[in-house]
Amino acid sequence: MDAAPLNDARGSVEDRRPPIEAHADSKEFHMKVLIVYAHPEPRSLNGSLKDLAVKTLESAGHEVQVSDLYGMKWKAVLDAEDYGPSASSPLKVAADSGTAFDTGTLAPEVKAEQEKLLWADTYIFQFPMWWYTMPAILKGWVDRVFTYHFAYGVGEHSDVKYGERFGEGTLLGKRAMLSVTAGGPESHYSDRGINGPIDDLLFPIHHGILYYPGIEVLPPFVLYGTDRTTDEDYPDIAKAWEHRLENLESADPIPFRRQNFGDYEIPSLHLKEGLEPAGRSGFGLHSR
Amino acid sequence: MDAAPLNDARGSVEDRRPPIEAHADSKEFHMKVLIVYAHPEPRSLNGSLKDLAVKTLESAGHEVQVSDLYGMKWKAVLDAEDYGPSASSPLKVAADSGTAFDTGTLAPEVKAEQEKLLWADTYIFQFPMWWYTMPAILKGWVDRVFTYHFAYGVGEHSDVKYGERFGEGTLLGKRAMLSVTAGGPESHYSDRGINGPIDDLLFPIHHGILYYPGIEVLPPFVLYGTDRTTDEDYPDIAKAWEHRLENLESADPIPFRRQNFGDYEIPSLHLKEGLEPAGRSGFGLHSR
Repeated sequence: MDAAPLNDARGSVEDRRPPIEAHADSKEFHMKVLIVYAHPEPRSLNGSLKDLAVKTLESAGHEVQVSDLYGMKWKAVLDAEDYGPSASSPLKVAADSGTAFDTGTLAPEVKAEQEKLLWADTYIFQFPMWWYTMPAILKGWVDRVFTYHFAYGVGEHSDVKYGERFGEGTLLGKRAMLSVTAGGPESHYSDRGINGPIDDLLFPIHHGILYYPGIEVLPPFVLYGTDRTTDEDYPDIAKAWEHRLENLESADPIPFRRQNFGDYEIPSLHLKEGLEPAGRSGFGLHSR
Repeated sequence: MDAAPLNDARGSVEDRRPPIEAHADSKEFHMKVLIVYAHPEPRSLNGSLKDLAVKTLESAGHEVQVSDLYGMKWKAVLDAEDYGPSASSPLKVAADSGTAFDTGTLAPEVKAEQEKLLWADTYIFQFPMWWYTMPAILKGWVDRVFTYHFAYGVGEHSDVKYGERFGEGTLLGKRAMLSVTAGGPESHYSDRGINGPIDDLLFPIHHGILYYPGIEVLPPFVLYGTDRTTDEDYPDIAKAWEHRLENLESADPIPFRRQNFGDYEIPSLHLKEGLEPAGRSGFGLHSR
């Protein structure tokens, strides 16, 4: 990993605008896209959506890298091996991961994923909802790749700042979108649906994992009722997915509130009273 | 535990009462407890809490089994190997897991965990919150052990019933409690805190994973600020944990609504209008 950009990456935002924004006026959009894909069966709906994304984006002139976690036999479990000589005994997950990051002793496959995250300006996560969240192999990608000093534990703590996170951080300027398949019908994921609203189910990923290190989060592409999807449904699904991909550059992110810019008390990180629209509560408080 | 109120709460579940309830009158409580523990370092706070739970429960005359996922080198990733000869090509995760369950061809370690779940009447999950949810190794335990026909895809679908889940199911009569450590301070997890309320962050686990196959869920034991916990804090933490363990039998579960008993429209599974207390929305709708 080249140390310099990462260094800059944590300072002022201007230095790390992705090319996509710099070229916005010229209409010569060029995205560097990382697709993180987690499904055990290449001939699945998830596999097809991943393949279609690669094809659609490359056809439009964008660069694409894919982390096919099952294909790579990604080790899902964070342990002392990840930190090499930086692993202390007893193991301290946060501190040791930070030391390994700082000293370049992270496991090579973890470093490689961090490099892909720094290379790309746009991330797509393609996975099935299993038990209302991501499969273990993808959670293990997060646990292992989002190390201390890379994705958290970045920036100063002071009276006006509680670290660089939620709107600042190493991955500021990047954008991400989840593309997920849900077995149950859409009504079960609606406001009054028994599973809870899809936006709330995805909040811990959108806000807690992606927005935390600075990534802007685009509205998700969610397919419902995929337990009953047949080959005949695929052309319509493909069309909808292509449409979303073609509009990826211009999509507006979810307007999550930034941590250090006046909306929150520091250090309690309570949202200040009166900032929210009437009737907003819970996770919804943290969007403008 | 007094059996009567529970009975009222759950409807006709007399056939599957765990021994703990049968002995309620005699005051000779006897629990069979499964502790599922997920931390890479035995000498961690999580490791200490697990050890203390074993000691405290066994001293009180209860039986305890521990699934130490790191210690067992638990395979976190669901794949075709889990289903042996029942794995089809292309792999169909739900259907194949159901066939493997029905025909006894699940991987031996998956079967063993299902047997532990059936043996125990009480489950404790001991883990650190990593990125606002469970570590990958524990998610992989859920992904692999909660198979079709065991934890989901159980019961009839009709005009009045949408399968046996959320208050019915294979694990009805069992009780579970999460014991989790969170690095950040409690205020960050409060109603207006930047991470979102802890009850909402845990809802996908409490309701979506545990209550789904019928388990009653006790309020969690949450330790905050564990990034800064020192050895000097441990005696107070241990005391609080022992207190919770000693009152495990008598704790009231979170009053989640049952799916098939009139609160929801079928098949949309929308909560019927007007059932919720004023101002309740989102995940909160699904508790009485």
